[in-house]
Amino acid sequence: MPEKPARTAVPIHELIARRWSPRSFDPERPVGREALLALMEAARWAPSCYGDQPWRYLVADRFADPAGWEAVFACLAEQNRRWAGAAPLLLVACADTRFGFSGEPNRWGAYDTGAASENLCLQAVALGLAAHQMGGFDAEALRRACAIPPRFEPMAVIAVGHPAGPDRLPPDLRERETAPRERRPLGERFFRARWGEPAA
Amino acid sequence: MPEKPARTAVPIHELIARRWSPRSFDPERPVGREALLALMEAARWAPSCYGDQPWRYLVADRFADPAGWEAVFACLAEQNRRWAGAAPLLLVACADTRFGFSGEPNRWGAYDTGAASENLCLQAVALGLAAHQMGGFDAEALRRACAIPPRFEPMAVIAVGHPAGPDRLPPDLRERETAPRERRPLGERFFRARWGEPAA
Repeated sequence: MPEKPARTAVPIHELIARRWSPRSFDPERPVGREALLALMEAARWAPSCYGDQPWRYLVADRFADPAGWEAVFACLAEQNRRWAGAAPLLLVACADTRFGFSGEPNRWGAYDTGAASENLCLQAVALGLAAHQMGGFDAEALRRACAIPPRFEPMAVIAVGHPAGPDRLPPDLRERETAPRERRPLGERFFRARWGEPAA
Repeated sequence: MPEKPARTAVPIHELIARRWSPRSFDPERPVGREALLALMEAARWAPSCYGDQPWRYLVADRFADPAGWEAVFACLAEQNRRWAGAAPLLLVACADTRFGFSGEPNRWGAYDTGAASENLCLQAVALGLAAHQMGGFDAEALRRACAIPPRFEPMAVIAVGHPAGPDRLPPDLRERETAPRERRPLGERFFRARWGEPAA
């Protein structure tokens, strides 16, 4: 897997700097039980509003449960099916739209689930695994395939596996696999206490 | 600051295990420019749908811009104003409700912003700082105070600073500062490819 560390004005923690979203996975190599537990634990200990832990994850393992994995895979957008088939794990991140303790609407459901998924992806980096979040899927098909209740919103499907080289990919994706990562300048995303005044 | 590492079934990366949400900050000690840049860079390199980077952060620094900081602080809920006044930095995390490249609704705005904020809080841990996200604030007052456009949704105010001991806090908060962290069991949040069937 190419190393594509974030290009930053000052050093940041290497775990955060090294995370990116590869598309090339080793199709033959499962993710072991201990690694899967570590991914789940990392997500589990993310922060959440009122400690409500509004995230739910469906774990589809191609080796342990081929039919379950296939059901999730079939819901992916075509451009994701081009590469995600090699990933041994597909994790569906779902956000509770309500608080578990009260049933009232929870405006932080997706925000907190995003934090949990980021923890999970960073733990993947720590384990030498590759993780790639996808927004391209048929949410209604996924609901039917996995019996996701209406109250929960499927937010992402996360492909996880052992990384492979760019050579496994078709030419256009191979190019993206090795291209530098890009971000907007700090001054476009970080303001002083007044909107639009760059903080950096 | 008390150490409250996550209690996990298998080891996880120490950066993720050590993160928690303290309420006690050293009121005399600012967060330096280099540390602030590192916090922003960590958030900046989070993943996002289509790479749209839907997050915006307002940075209110009590030392560099007391009036800006005060304006944000005044919007916090009373229970947060009891302790957050010691924090030198208050960061307002806002989520774009639309894609920057198209103007179409972005259902991942809050999800991606939650990931960026988690990166920021983990970078705080790496720097020996304390970070605590709050959902308790008056969002409309915050919009007015900081000129946040209607298209963006304020999701959290993040208090950041150098940690102090629990002794600085009133008795009830001191107790929470030293209490163990709690999470729901894995089997309640992680399912197999079928909703409700525990994955662990």
